[in-house]
Amino acid sequence: MNLAKVVGTVVSSQKEDSLTGLKFLVLELVDERRKATGASVVAADAVGAGVGELVLYAAGSSARQTRVTDKRPVDAVVMAIVDSWEIDGKEIYRKGRDDGELSP
Amino acid sequence: MNLAKVVGTVVSSQKEDSLTGLKFLVLELVDERRKATGASVVAADAVGAGVGELVLYAAGSSARQTRVTDKRPVDAVVMAIVDSWEIDGKEIYRKGRDDGELSP
Amino acid sequence: MNLAKVVGTVVSSQKEDSLTGLKFLVLELVDERRKATGASVVAADAVGAGVGELVLYAAGSSARQTRVTDKRPVDAVVMAIVDSWEIDGKEIYRKGRDDGELSP
Amino acid sequence: MNLAKVVGTVVSSQKEDSLTGLKFLVLELVDERRKATGASVVAADAVGAGVGELVLYAAGSSARQTRVTDKRPVDAVVMAIVDSWEIDGKEIYRKGRDDGELSP
Amino acid sequence: MNLAKVVGTVVSSQKEDSLTGLKFLVLELVDERRKATGASVVAADAVGAGVGELVLYAAGSSARQTRVTDKRPVDAVVMAIVDSWEIDGKEIYRKGRDDGELSP
Repeated sequence: MNLAKVVGTVVSSQKEDSLTGLKFLVLELVDERRKATGASVVAADAVGAGVGELVLYAAGSSARQTRVTDKRPVDAVVMAIVDSWEIDGKEIYRKGRDDGELSP
Repeated sequence: MNLAKVVGTVVSSQKEDSLTGLKFLVLELVDERRKATGASVVAADAVGAGVGELVLYAAGSSARQTRVTDKRPVDAVVMAIVDSWEIDGKEIYRKGRDDGELSP
Repeated sequence: MNLAKVVGTVVSSQKEDSLTGLKFLVLELVDERRKATGASVVAADAVGAGVGELVLYAAGSSARQTRVTDKRPVDAVVMAIVDSWEIDGKEIYRKGRDDGELSP
Repeated sequence: MNLAKVVGTVVSSQKEDSLTGLKFLVLELVDERRKATGASVVAADAVGAGVGELVLYAAGSSARQTRVTDKRPVDAVVMAIVDSWEIDGKEIYRKGRDDGELSP
Repeated sequence: MNLAKVVGTVVSSQKEDSLTGLKFLVLELVDERRKATGASVVAADAVGAGVGELVLYAAGSSARQTRVTDKRPVDAVVMAIVDSWEIDGKEIYRKGRDDGELSP
């Protein structure tokens, strides 16, 4: 999995039938120090994440192991909203305190 | 998934039998700001996408989770034509208004 | 999938039993303009491709979705020989006319 | 698989139900000479690894082949704590002697 | 698949139970001209490969398609020891003649 910030949404009406009802989020990947890596990905939402939140996403076939993505043509899923993480004993992020801000 | 622009098509007559009838599209990947990343991929078409359209594609085993790609040796599929997307509340693309144009 | 040129072959006698009879091709990847990307991969051959031909290959679990690679430890397969492709309405390659040549 | 050092942990309360009870570790990847590569990944813990330990992790669908990750939306798992490794006959790392230190 | 040179081994006593008995090899990847690419990977051994040998390895779910890796959390496997390979009709490597040496 990787850490990422939800930065946007994608809308599509003409799509594979099984995708109906899925919400597509645009993610900006962040490294373990909460800096943007410059990479982005579009992921299905399995947890009700919103723009600005820091999340975990899973890729590949594992992205189909949630209730909403099962057997669908989806290769990335947001499966957890992050409360906090720490590196070498130091808290890098805490939801509510550091919402949506990335390190420069 | 990733955002991409359909830029071309590939034709092959000598191929694995199960691929008969599939249309292969050449995709130019774009980032969340609609800039070309320089990478390209060839994907099967599951939604009737045409050259110039902005699409979402899925890769890996998830690319086989559509009616036309099921059990076929295909590792990328266009499974949605994008109507619009927005980043940080700003609309980056709207079909009909920004057709096929990429950011410089 | 990606476009590639077949540039060589690999021979191995000491291998997993299920690989007996498979032909391993060395592929040089090309981008959508028929330029070498500098990357290479070794793929099983499912279509009788020869050195010098432009092909499509599939990677990951999709590489096992052909008759010759089913249930084998193979993560890339040549599943189509390319006749031609075009980008933005311009033909970039046609078999017989541009055989094996790459753009400088 | 790749070698990595466990550098932190991620906490999430709002997540896919099947993830309850899993521990998420932040890994810093190291190369075969024990130098940090600059890349990081978040992996589920299947072996009770702690911060500072050198581990092996597996990615993709293989990350679901442990007792704790089976059928869960998890694409990376720590499945072994490294005792030692050697390159060209020279021991690069031994647990207890080189704990947690990386090459400069 | 990719070509690689076996350069070392990894030992782990504390690991997922299903991994017992597997040998982990450290691989240095080489390109089609037998130059090191700078990348490395750890792979399970399915063919009795030794340090110094040039091998083929498969990644992803395909790495589980050997007798010793079936249903195990392993994402890379050495499934063939290379006898020789040629590029554009020129032999780049022959076991016994070019053992273990890489191009500068």
